[in-house]
Amino acid sequence: MRIALLGVGLIGGSIGLAARKRLGAEVIGFDPDPQSSERAVELGALDRSASSVADAVADADVVFCAAPVRALPGLVGDALEASGAETAVSDVGSTKEELVEEVSRRDGSQRFIGGHPLAGAETAGVESSRADLFEGARWYLTPLADSEGVMFERLNRLIGDLGARPEAIDPGEHDRMMATVSHLPHVLSNVLVSRAADTLTAGDRRPEVGRSFRDATRVAGANPGIWADIFATNSVAVAAEVEAVIAELSEALELLREGEGEAIGSWQARALESRRRLDDAKDAGGPQVELRIAVENRPGALAEIALALGKAGVNIDDMSLFPSADRRSGAISLWVIGEAEARRAAGIVTDLGHTVSIAGTG
Amino acid sequence: MRIALLGVGLIGGSIGLAARKRLGAEVIGFDPDPQSSERAVELGALDRSASSVADAVADADVVFCAAPVRALPGLVGDALEASGAETAVSDVGSTKEELVEEVSRRDGSQRFIGGHPLAGAETAGVESSRADLFEGARWYLTPLADSEGVMFERLNRLIGDLGARPEAIDPGEHDRMMATVSHLPHVLSNVLVSRAADTLTAGDRRPEVGRSFRDATRVAGANPGIWADIFATNSVAVAAEVEAVIAELSEALELLREGEGEAIGSWQARALESRRRLDDAKDAGGPQVELRIAVENRPGALAEIALALGKAGVNIDDMSLFPSADRRSGAISLWVIGEAEARRAAGIVTDLGHTVSIAGTG
Repeated sequence: MRIALLGVGLIGGSIGLAARKRLGAEVIGFDPDPQSSERAVELGALDRSASSVADAVADADVVFCAAPVRALPGLVGDALEASGAETAVSDVGSTKEELVEEVSRRDGSQRFIGGHPLAGAETAGVESSRADLFEGARWYLTPLADSEGVMFERLNRLIGDLGARPEAIDPGEHDRMMATVSHLPHVLSNVLVSRAADTLTAGDRRPEVGRSFRDATRVAGANPGIWADIFATNSVAVAAEVEAVIAELSEALELLREGEGEAIGSWQARALESRRRLDDAKDAGGPQVELRIAVENRPGALAEIALALGKAGVNIDDMSLFPSADRRSGAISLWVIGEAEARRAAGIVTDLGHTVSIAGTG
Repeated sequence: MRIALLGVGLIGGSIGLAARKRLGAEVIGFDPDPQSSERAVELGALDRSASSVADAVADADVVFCAAPVRALPGLVGDALEASGAETAVSDVGSTKEELVEEVSRRDGSQRFIGGHPLAGAETAGVESSRADLFEGARWYLTPLADSEGVMFERLNRLIGDLGARPEAIDPGEHDRMMATVSHLPHVLSNVLVSRAADTLTAGDRRPEVGRSFRDATRVAGANPGIWADIFATNSVAVAAEVEAVIAELSEALELLREGEGEAIGSWQARALESRRRLDDAKDAGGPQVELRIAVENRPGALAEIALALGKAGVNIDDMSLFPSADRRSGAISLWVIGEAEARRAAGIVTDLGHTVSIAGTG
């Protein structure tokens, strides 16, 4: 397995460390700042620092573009152009729809599958790289209808082998979800520090903040260059969330002005209820069950299956492709958690027109 | 030293543990639920479980009322009524102005000094009590102009001995500050889980949340009974904060709609700037310097000094009172951190009409 990293910062460096340590992969990296890629070699994240994008991606099985969001369309385009027909290209950007749309207009876009690992740290740069950064982390993949199944399977497997949990998702759905669970918390964190700085530094008293404030403002003002791009490339979804928050705050404001303890208590209790609803919806455990799916001659079949399962909330725990020699048909094995989940998944895949059988867990 | 605890939950129990362990104090507790106070005896937080408020407060040097905010005016009133002229009464409620106003209309209110330790935990109840809960924590005290200096000094010293850092503050200023650094984060946390529950549980996909979301929603829906009271007793200040947040979010919404990367970047950079301003304003270290103050015959002198220093941002690191036998005059020693701070404090106290000298640090 040969992996090319275009951009060797925290994420690129951590992919390199994990791929070399866990998979024994050969990892070649290119960074516009040669000091980063040379340091990555010293840290053991790269076998070799490449002199150009073309040098890095030559003969790679998988290329990861790990640059700031705004640089990704150009970088992915360069990677597709410089790499061969057997190379899968992915990225690790925090927003997906705009990128996927731009890339899909390019030649070779069938080899591109967008990605986004939910991993990061307050510190950036290759020095902070860790081989275990992706351990247990969700890693979203955004295959399109014309994405090559072999490329998707290879990437999906690689990401699982890096210790992460891959899941297919529609790029737009990804961005709307991130607006809620990541981008909105960053907006509110910014507003909180802005309020606190205005009111607490007005006098001479030294501000004292408790844990709720520290927790709520940990990401305030996070890397302005990176975050300006994230907000700008997901502005519609983030704006919709901000608007919804303004509406909810306006309701809370009414309750506070009325000063009715009971109504305020009900509002607080509803928040507790929301929190429980959210917790209940999270992952549950169980035994791994294998689904064997016979797929016919259609390029987007695997992507379609993965998207349908993801949308239905079925988590694909593992995946294997058994293509025919000409890649025109084959079998797919998917592993999901729990018998009930397997039966539900089988129903969804059957509805897509495929033949499915549930294998025993042995 | 004899301490009475009225209400033996997390805070009361932790005061008991710290006072017995660190000070060897005798601690008597009363709780409307006798199981709590009996359990507190088993856990070593109390020497004895009292049968009534009067039984608990008899001969106590200090009484802490540790009940939900709404119950405090009644409980503090009972404590003042049942205790003698030598007993200081305090509380640990999260909001202060409404309570202090109600208590100040009662007999014996000169013996009451409101308090609020910035310590707590996600878990409540006496089982979660810890002797080190207040270690290094800010503990606000709200003396009034007619608060007895001896009572204030005793309470201030006791709180320092429990491991906390006492600071005098005006009750209204306390509540406005808490609205910004504590109550507002709780409101935003509630709104975030409400948004997430609405959007993430709409489909079948299992919601996946990152660290920023977990951090920002840790306190969502926190104990509805307790928090309804906190919001209700500080509704004016919290409403003002919510209104200011709505205004800031409306500005952010405009930026997002315009989708201008550069303007969004400036907004993010301003949040970083606010955060740094806030960090800079926090405590700095240095050597402890003693101020000796001669005070004349006026009941509120110590409270007035502590409030003036607190307002000017001077942190009183320690305090000692040396009253004359009739308590009509005496000397006060205050310790502050750093020579420059000591000179600034001396100026403020001199302006109040007292004679001040700065002692060497030895």
